[in-house]
Amino acid sequence: MEADGTSLRGVDYSRIFTQAIDRLHVEGRYRVFIDILRNKGAYPNARCFAGHNGPKPITVWCSNDYLAMGQHPAVIAAMEEALHDVGAGSGGTRNIGGNTHYHVDLEGELADLHGKEGALLFTSGYVSNEATLATLAKILPGCIIFSDEMNHASMIAGIRNSGCEKHVFRHNDLEHLEELLAAVDPAAPKLIAFESVYSMEGDVAPIAAICDLADKYSALTYLDEVHAVGMYGARGGGISERDGVADRLTIIEGTLGKAFGVMGGYITADQTIIDVIRSYAPGFIFTTSLSPVLVSGALASVRHLKASGVEREGQQAAATMLKAMFAEAGLPVMNSTTHIVPLMVGDPVKAKKISDILLAEYGVYVQPINYPTVPRGTERLRFTPGPAHDEAMMRELTQALVEIWSRLELRKAA
Amino acid sequence: MEADGTSLRGVDYSRIFTQAIDRLHVEGRYRVFIDILRNKGAYPNARCFAGHNGPKPITVWCSNDYLAMGQHPAVIAAMEEALHDVGAGSGGTRNIGGNTHYHVDLEGELADLHGKEGALLFTSGYVSNEATLATLAKILPGCIIFSDEMNHASMIAGIRNSGCEKHVFRHNDLEHLEELLAAVDPAAPKLIAFESVYSMEGDVAPIAAICDLADKYSALTYLDEVHAVGMYGARGGGISERDGVADRLTIIEGTLGKAFGVMGGYITADQTIIDVIRSYAPGFIFTTSLSPVLVSGALASVRHLKASGVEREGQQAAATMLKAMFAEAGLPVMNSTTHIVPLMVGDPVKAKKISDILLAEYGVYVQPINYPTVPRGTERLRFTPGPAHDEAMMRELTQALVEIWSRLELRKAA
Repeated sequence: MEADGTSLRGVDYSRIFTQAIDRLHVEGRYRVFIDILRNKGAYPNARCFAGHNGPKPITVWCSNDYLAMGQHPAVIAAMEEALHDVGAGSGGTRNIGGNTHYHVDLEGELADLHGKEGALLFTSGYVSNEATLATLAKILPGCIIFSDEMNHASMIAGIRNSGCEKHVFRHNDLEHLEELLAAVDPAAPKLIAFESVYSMEGDVAPIAAICDLADKYSALTYLDEVHAVGMYGARGGGISERDGVADRLTIIEGTLGKAFGVMGGYITADQTIIDVIRSYAPGFIFTTSLSPVLVSGALASVRHLKASGVEREGQQAAATMLKAMFAEAGLPVMNSTTHIVPLMVGDPVKAKKISDILLAEYGVYVQPINYPTVPRGTERLRFTPGPAHDEAMMRELTQALVEIWSRLELRKAA
Repeated sequence: MEADGTSLRGVDYSRIFTQAIDRLHVEGRYRVFIDILRNKGAYPNARCFAGHNGPKPITVWCSNDYLAMGQHPAVIAAMEEALHDVGAGSGGTRNIGGNTHYHVDLEGELADLHGKEGALLFTSGYVSNEATLATLAKILPGCIIFSDEMNHASMIAGIRNSGCEKHVFRHNDLEHLEELLAAVDPAAPKLIAFESVYSMEGDVAPIAAICDLADKYSALTYLDEVHAVGMYGARGGGISERDGVADRLTIIEGTLGKAFGVMGGYITADQTIIDVIRSYAPGFIFTTSLSPVLVSGALASVRHLKASGVEREGQQAAATMLKAMFAEAGLPVMNSTTHIVPLMVGDPVKAKKISDILLAEYGVYVQPINYPTVPRGTERLRFTPGPAHDEAMMRELTQALVEIWSRLELRKAA
């Protein structure tokens, strides 16, 4: 479509597309991607490029490389080794030329991490959720899905694409979930889909109690642990490991792109379910498999975090300290029980303004979180302190926020 | 779900899952992934692991790393540089911490490759098709999609997930397409979705003629060039570059995981459309961005193939030679006009048997292609000779196939 050719056509496509973009500007939620490069070995230090008074050094406060494993020497070394041993990409789907020994090894490692019989890798956590939920529910005739209202967009996509009957329960609300479970046909296959750590709130699901309901109503369970794997449990198996309930869950899903620092997603489950998803899910079958370079890095990362608790402890200490500083300074820190530290702003324009000032004047990089990532009216800043964020950085950050809160006359904590 | 616990439940989930797998065995299309590692610098030589008389060296004949760019020194060097400069993963979505300068540069390079204003990276070609088609069609009120019957699963997924009215036209059939276009409301937004090279047949779409119809009926066009980018056109811009019609297409989609040898997908289009997809597509928004290591490798690969024609010429020469050898030997080579060399078998069990014998007895790795990748009854072997497959390898392969064809009493070419 040429900009100057559209008027000759029967449909003014250009106008429709431009209006779609205009709506974002009007709502103040047009997204500007900040152009950065991290400095390996010096995380959370990074560089930003043009704009925002840059190029200049910045401190990253919003990365999901929660434990800085993306810069861990063991991970880098493993990736370099694979790069030199087998090359850049896998060259094919898992079935046609793209199944390397690295993939086989990593799936074994992940199955072990969650105490399951098998695992299956996907190109992303998004795809693992979408493909697994859509396929699983289609395989089960008449399946009814019960979904937490705060579930991630990828789970919602999978549930919608399954075409199944769906019931949304209020966030972490066991009574509401039971009410919905009790109201449907007892003989129908059922699936409860939820997350362990909700990434924009920082709260945690009552996994054991949800499993009790699943047992009572004969439902399968699907748990998204992407914001927990590597970070909770003695070996980084997530909240389900910490709570000792991994064996009660039908499917545990995780990511290699957050605490493990690389890229990709996976599910773990019993071997039959893995085989079903492997054999029937279009999002698994029809796509080039993960690069062996990534798989090798993820393998090193998972193995490291199974054995080492230092990163987890450092992260928890940093999160506790930052929450305390924010609270003491009267900043509206949300009630998170995890490593995620969100500050409520409640307005997309103000959230973006704070973020812009932080970057331009303080060299602090934290993105505003707006709709559709969070509901309208709950726009926020979301900080992810990790083991590499020290006390001096936190003091500087808190001071900067206090100054901006005052300058913009923002609401402080109650 | 515990295997021994299912009988206690109201629904026998285990039985349903086991039956789903049993159906694959009965049809002879249960997939066994061959566990391999390629030897960098020695492609198409590789190693296979347990099973198939292995571990042992093998020759890969079914990779989509068509030009062996996954092992090119410039690509490896670029990936190593990024690995040491910024680390393993991006650490976030494009909007939240995961937008690196490598991403910005590669999008510029890809837009230039196809002569478009902008480009957008996705984690895979599958996701780029699914996310773009679903989102584009949803943005256009009442959009009607016209889809070639041989379109890839990822396009079909995107079209289905858009929820739009859809009309499937017979493969490359302009008359049928026009018939369908003429039958709908002239004022409705329309989108024609098709591929340039169809990867399982090796034939090519009449792009210019489809663009003529798009102009006549005021339709947008979406062209999947994943099996053509890097390989056709003076700079590797695909069939649309070769045919001089890139500027007539609304959106050109490509992959970084086949001829470019790395991993990831992309679209190119005018800036407004890129902005719409960037802002509205869940499959783009809610996922960790491509690892900068991959992006750096892809950047080097795209730049190399823009300037170098040697790989393309070598591939075409190899494909021509292999097709001639197969034809001369009376093997049922399909009528491909591209680098893809499919041999029709027409039966899933026989196709798998041939593949198994090739690997176990001849050290030749070529996967059987079965349903759902191709229609039932058209199961085949699909060879992808490249610049690194030499004449001696082709003679050995042809001889092996002739022996197997005779041993299994398979149908020869007419």
